Amino acid sequence: MQTQPGVQALVRRTHEERVLQVLREQGALSRNQIARAVGLSRTTLSEITGSLLQRGAIIVTDTDAAHREGSGRPAERLALDPASGQFMGVDFGHRRVHVTVADASHEIVASGSDRYEDRVDWPTRLDVAFRLIERLSDEYGVHYGALQGVGIGIPGPYSGKPGVRGFPSHRAAADGFHDASVDEAFGERFGAPVIVDNNTRLAALAEAIFGAKAIENLLYVRLSDGVGGGLVVGGRLVSGSAGLAGELGHVTVRADGGPCRCGKNGCLETIASVPAILATCRAAGLAAESLDDLAAAVARSHPVADQVLRDAGAAVGRVLAAVAMALNPAEIVIGGAITRLAPAIVEQAAARVSYELFPGAASPGVRAAYLSDDDGALGALAAVFHSSPLLAGYPETPAPAGSGSRLRQTETRGVADGRAH
Amino acid sequence: MQTQPGVQALVRRTHEERVLQVLREQGALSRNQIARAVGLSRTTLSEITGSLLQRGAIIVTDTDAAHREGSGRPAERLALDPASGQFMGVDFGHRRVHVTVADASHEIVASGSDRYEDRVDWPTRLDVAFRLIERLSDEYGVHYGALQGVGIGIPGPYSGKPGVRGFPSHRAAADGFHDASVDEAFGERFGAPVIVDNNTRLAALAEAIFGAKAIENLLYVRLSDGVGGGLVVGGRLVSGSAGLAGELGHVTVRADGGPCRCGKNGCLETIASVPAILATCRAAGLAAESLDDLAAAVARSHPVADQVLRDAGAAVGRVLAAVAMALNPAEIVIGGAITRLAPAIVEQAAARVSYELFPGAASPGVRAAYLSDDDGALGALAAVFHSSPLLAGYPETPAPAGSGSRLRQTETRGVADGRAH
Repeated sequence: MQTQPGVQALVRRTHEERVLQVLREQGALSRNQIARAVGLSRTTLSEITGSLLQRGAIIVTDTDAAHREGSGRPAERLALDPASGQFMGVDFGHRRVHVTVADASHEIVASGSDRYEDRVDWPTRLDVAFRLIERLSDEYGVHYGALQGVGIGIPGPYSGKPGVRGFPSHRAAADGFHDASVDEAFGERFGAPVIVDNNTRLAALAEAIFGAKAIENLLYVRLSDGVGGGLVVGGRLVSGSAGLAGELGHVTVRADGGPCRCGKNGCLETIASVPAILATCRAAGLAAESLDDLAAAVARSHPVADQVLRDAGAAVGRVLAAVAMALNPAEIVIGGAITRLAPAIVEQAAARVSYELFPGAASPGVRAAYLSDDDGALGALAAVFHSSPLLAGYPETPAPAGSGSRLRQTETRGVADGRAH
Repeated sequence: MQTQPGVQALVRRTHEERVLQVLREQGALSRNQIARAVGLSRTTLSEITGSLLQRGAIIVTDTDAAHREGSGRPAERLALDPASGQFMGVDFGHRRVHVTVADASHEIVASGSDRYEDRVDWPTRLDVAFRLIERLSDEYGVHYGALQGVGIGIPGPYSGKPGVRGFPSHRAAADGFHDASVDEAFGERFGAPVIVDNNTRLAALAEAIFGAKAIENLLYVRLSDGVGGGLVVGGRLVSGSAGLAGELGHVTVRADGGPCRCGKNGCLETIASVPAILATCRAAGLAAESLDDLAAAVARSHPVADQVLRDAGAAVGRVLAAVAMALNPAEIVIGGAITRLAPAIVEQAAARVSYELFPGAASPGVRAAYLSDDDGALGALAAVFHSSPLLAGYPETPAPAGSGSRLRQTETRGVADGRAH
């Protein structure tokens, strides 16, 4: 799922990462100090620092005149450029793209979104994304010379195999989407490893690693315009044999239920997606055209809203329970804006899961997602942090993150501090 | 999941394995030849071969008098003892234990089973197993001096964590079973690494690796006295957060269905287990007390049998489809003796899976299991082959194996040939 640079490029990237790592840990250093710390020859080190300086990943801060003894020309000291975006998360939705950029300390240094027409083609989406990324550069004074990785969430299935079309999705087929095209476009543009995956699946990964303790086995479902899901099994995101894992929305819940856009009847999506819930409310006489209407009805304890939400929650719980019986996850997470305004849906799903799993067995926790639907780019960032072999030192127990806030709550360190977000 | 020998023992075992490997590949060799081939000093090599000779893993075949030039005392040539069992698979059922022993070439060199009382305690089961293993030694002239690993299948959940009780199973709780006790007993007895797991799960693993090409993502369900399952995801057997993965039998299929022994209603097990199928046939007027009765009814195309089996198959298919939607497996396998005498159950399950998964998506193949219920010990052997780090050279694409036949169909090699199985 990454672009495959040649061995030379890989070696250089590894050297670069070691230099950046030392600067991250120790702050400003002279070239001699860096060479000693990373065990590179002065010649090799000079090439590396030259390239990093040119790309803007590091800057010359001062000389070591104040720190050194003896005579001779003072040596320049180098440090990470706090304005350098090291990791980028990109989330392509149906109608807009979110981009979030984090620095070497995993602090968010830039974030923004832009809209495009619904169902616009992929070249246009990419164009909007690249223009947004340039604008963020100007706006936040961030640059991408030291980019270590890009995580990209896309709607619809993703096989991870260039050339494998994966699936003629209702969501992706119409616009001539190719799995490999997004990957390639970003790889060529930034010369950095790119990870692409389904955005709901990336949200599942983010939920697994954003908690106080990383969850090895997690089941995730998201209720929004449709219903999708993702699974983490044994600490790894599951893509399935053809990139289709996590399609919980089309599990049949009521064989005699209403027609689904997939061609079957009574799929979970026909009961628990936001449009389905609103339609059911309206059919029962509650004027609910939007989530805001539904929120208002919930706020005044409208019995129709409560019943519809509880029915939907029970249906969600049944599907989650069936999959949980197979996978025995430690945690089940329900995402989507509706879970925040209508907690009944999560409560009812949790109750159903608890009932369906064996009496006596420790039932997995069922909770609403930490991240909101707008946090897709954070999910994509999480994938980069999770996957990059350059980031083996990434702590396995990051602090819990609130919605849309910083990716890590740790204090900023070294030269990366003091930025306004 | 393995016994943890000290580092010393581990180093010695690695040396031993290298010596055995060389003998496996090159046939009879002198000590000098072995020492050169494995890069060990003569002193170390002498200790290793001494121990292997003492334990009966290798034998002295002849001297190199016929092969060498020059004078001096002819050196002994050593070779693998073809009668040495290198790998052991053990399958504990509710009423009997199966043991299968394979040699260094993965050929079955001994196999047998013995009965115990239903629900007898574990110390008794272990006793029966150990006596069976000794009897196989006498009967087949096999010995266990060079045992490289033991795979053990047990009924009920297995957490893999000593001291973690996993689950108060209806099947295991009553007899004071402890996860670690079987593991420890075999480890102490044979001084070899032991892998223990749920026997249905091991069957799933065996199905994944016994085909012409190893399956990375496979979903397995077994219909017998109960209904259980197992999953292989990304090439790895899934145990779940508490060792409970694969409990497909207790997914609710009909909320208004009959009571299940788990306390719920309408679980898959109440519809598709062998006793449930027989009971449903009887309720519809077909006298079916046993699988033989059912087979006879199927043979004369009895409409009740056909209908009951198709209903059960459809229920199995619904559960498989829900899990397949989440996991996107490449293959779905249905095991249990009933699938052989009543193919309708697999046909109907396959049809349901095909319907439930999206139109247009490549549906996973649905097939009856290669291995029969009596082949549990082969599943346990497969686990050893799959897991042993000493077996990194085990080919990933073994030939397809028929039921109960040899684990590998390759020609026997070197000294391991010519044995009657």
